[in-house]
Amino acid sequence: MVNTLPLEIVADELARLRAANPLVHLLTNEVVQEITANVLLAAGAAPAMIVAEEEAAAFTAISGALLVNVGTLYPARLTVMQQAVAAANQAGVPWTLDPVAVGVLDYRTRACGEFIACRPAAIRGNASEIMALAGFLGSGGRGVDTTTGSDAAVSAAEQLARSTGAIVAVTGATDFITDGATTWAAPWGHPLMTRVVGTGCALSALVAAFTASAPNRLNAVAAACAMAGLCGERAAASCRGPGSFKADFLDALYRLSPETLRGLAGEIRC
Amino acid sequence: MVNTLPLEIVADELARLRAANPLVHLLTNEVVQEITANVLLAAGAAPAMIVAEEEAAAFTAISGALLVNVGTLYPARLTVMQQAVAAANQAGVPWTLDPVAVGVLDYRTRACGEFIACRPAAIRGNASEIMALAGFLGSGGRGVDTTTGSDAAVSAAEQLARSTGAIVAVTGATDFITDGATTWAAPWGHPLMTRVVGTGCALSALVAAFTASAPNRLNAVAAACAMAGLCGERAAASCRGPGSFKADFLDALYRLSPETLRGLAGEIRC
Amino acid sequence: MVNTLPLEIVADELARLRAANPLVHLLTNEVVQEITANVLLAAGAAPAMIVAEEEAAAFTAISGALLVNVGTLYPARLTVMQQAVAAANQAGVPWTLDPVAVGVLDYRTRACGEFIACRPAAIRGNASEIMALAGFLGSGGRGVDTTTGSDAAVSAAEQLARSTGAIVAVTGATDFITDGATTWAAPWGHPLMTRVVGTGCALSALVAAFTASAPNRLNAVAAACAMAGLCGERAAASCRGPGSFKADFLDALYRLSPETLRGLAGEIRC
Repeated sequence: MVNTLPLEIVADELARLRAANPLVHLLTNEVVQEITANVLLAAGAAPAMIVAEEEAAAFTAISGALLVNVGTLYPARLTVMQQAVAAANQAGVPWTLDPVAVGVLDYRTRACGEFIACRPAAIRGNASEIMALAGFLGSGGRGVDTTTGSDAAVSAAEQLARSTGAIVAVTGATDFITDGATTWAAPWGHPLMTRVVGTGCALSALVAAFTASAPNRLNAVAAACAMAGLCGERAAASCRGPGSFKADFLDALYRLSPETLRGLAGEIRC
Repeated sequence: MVNTLPLEIVADELARLRAANPLVHLLTNEVVQEITANVLLAAGAAPAMIVAEEEAAAFTAISGALLVNVGTLYPARLTVMQQAVAAANQAGVPWTLDPVAVGVLDYRTRACGEFIACRPAAIRGNASEIMALAGFLGSGGRGVDTTTGSDAAVSAAEQLARSTGAIVAVTGATDFITDGATTWAAPWGHPLMTRVVGTGCALSALVAAFTASAPNRLNAVAAACAMAGLCGERAAASCRGPGSFKADFLDALYRLSPETLRGLAGEIRC
Repeated sequence: MVNTLPLEIVADELARLRAANPLVHLLTNEVVQEITANVLLAAGAAPAMIVAEEEAAAFTAISGALLVNVGTLYPARLTVMQQAVAAANQAGVPWTLDPVAVGVLDYRTRACGEFIACRPAAIRGNASEIMALAGFLGSGGRGVDTTTGSDAAVSAAEQLARSTGAIVAVTGATDFITDGATTWAAPWGHPLMTRVVGTGCALSALVAAFTASAPNRLNAVAAACAMAGLCGERAAASCRGPGSFKADFLDALYRLSPETLRGLAGEIRC
């Protein structure tokens, strides 16, 4: 049973995020660090990248949430990620996995297979990635066809959520967010987002930010997806191409308010 | 014999790039990864940075082209680059070298000397870099004077092309692109491009993208230079400084179409 | 005794920077490298990131200034920083320390404690960082309260300057720049700067650029702070949020001229 996420929920979650301004520890890929930090600053969280073995675990323990993104994985960074995940679990800090290109290359595929056994709070990926992760569980996903629509991966997402205990977000033209029992659809976004590097990776960071101290983790993850999609639509409407899209997207994240969302919710209903 | 590149060739090459949307493996420097990925996404290619020894060579073999940029070279990354180049040559994947600051520092100079013996499909550099590379071949370039104009390096570029088998692009106020026999001039561009980090490095990535499955590699490399120069002129005309230049440049790359180029070609002729 | 920095000094220092276009060696954190390079290019300096043990010290010796920023410190990068600092001191190249998050995490705190004993030309940090550094000297700073205002750290900054011989800039709503005897206040800036990653790190790079061949180091460092603050105000006035702020800030840095500053100085006086 899939229902469209009510914008009132997004409004409530955004108000909670802005009030908490959580510190988010980002262990992400080396290509997208700047846009990822800027998305969190614009949305209302406090990003930090602490990457050394000497510091990472201690920093995770004082953070509100952790992101692990395997986009440019290599052994030294993988070790730090594993230490940070262990510290997160010990301290009760929710952590989010972005399994970039899992299923395409063996090294990261093995790493992601181990990560999903470490109780992530959330997993955010495209259809191929979610199906590849579900494949570890025997559902047959292979994850190499990046043209697969997100709707084709809903059952894989639900199975992955039930098996791991994570909230799973499979994103695409419509995003689906599930805890294995309830599934929200977030039908917002714009194709231009795929022409700007890091929009997906930054969404995973936003997911992590919303999970910090979240009373309802499913709603928190869904709100992150909705916020990114809605702001993507606004930026696509005002921009002249992917260069101005990026600036307009960050401006939209900064300007979006719970009040605006409640107004939109009212308009849709009337 | 140097002739100005006809815009019809740029139009044809751009149409080919957009239809193919090639996957381009980027092993580039750590400063410019985001703008480099965004330039390829805007122009019509699919960038990916896969940087671990565990994955890079396997990924090169399934890519349409490879870029090697030595801007922030260090031993672990150099090893990965060498493995990727070997994989590219074995799989018939064309690879492009950007020899950033070759001739200035010994470590990268030695590395570049070895790279040009590994059959690059294309080499893109400024006058000093191309003259330094040609110096390995006895032409006397030293490469430390970054104020040298690109026209002073045309004969070094031609010799480098004949010796290595690569298409060589020496870029500056006018870009010259040569296979050692035929040389195109691409007289487009704007000085403001030098005030935005990564425009040169991203051009090398665009060169790599155009070489993927190119039936005429000389025209492919020249088209990349022309596209960047033309979009640089457009961005310079619309922007208010280097900050807005970057967004406008990406927008222009996204909006430039083969039809626009054919229209410009007609105007110039009439 | 704290006086407001006269804009005539900023004008003179900016004219000197633009005429010299100094080469600045940046060893900075992995998140902010692109914006840092773009800030220097827009302002009128030539940035370069040379990060390998094989090259860094040799490059420092031919640079006009060096920046060391510990934001994403790890052992291999720390070794390179230590070699670069030694090379800078041997060659008489001024170097600037940005002690990101010193006092919060032990590894970087120890590293920074060693760095301030190596004769930095300038140190740029927020109130918590400057108080943490002064804590090595017995003034009792602890550096973990990032909400501390910059005015609370002026005496710590003055003590740090006297003990290390560095010009110390403690930045916040008002920046204070001191050599331990004379202290300038630079009351420009805008809170939106804190919503864009790297504005503080890039300011430290700008401080390093202004120190190159500076006849009056105190004025040089103060001018860097004033330039960033004034351009931040201009960008905040023209932008629609943090995304467009970044572009507008770079445009403002590029467009700000000594003549404009002298005009502003006259207006303020009249």
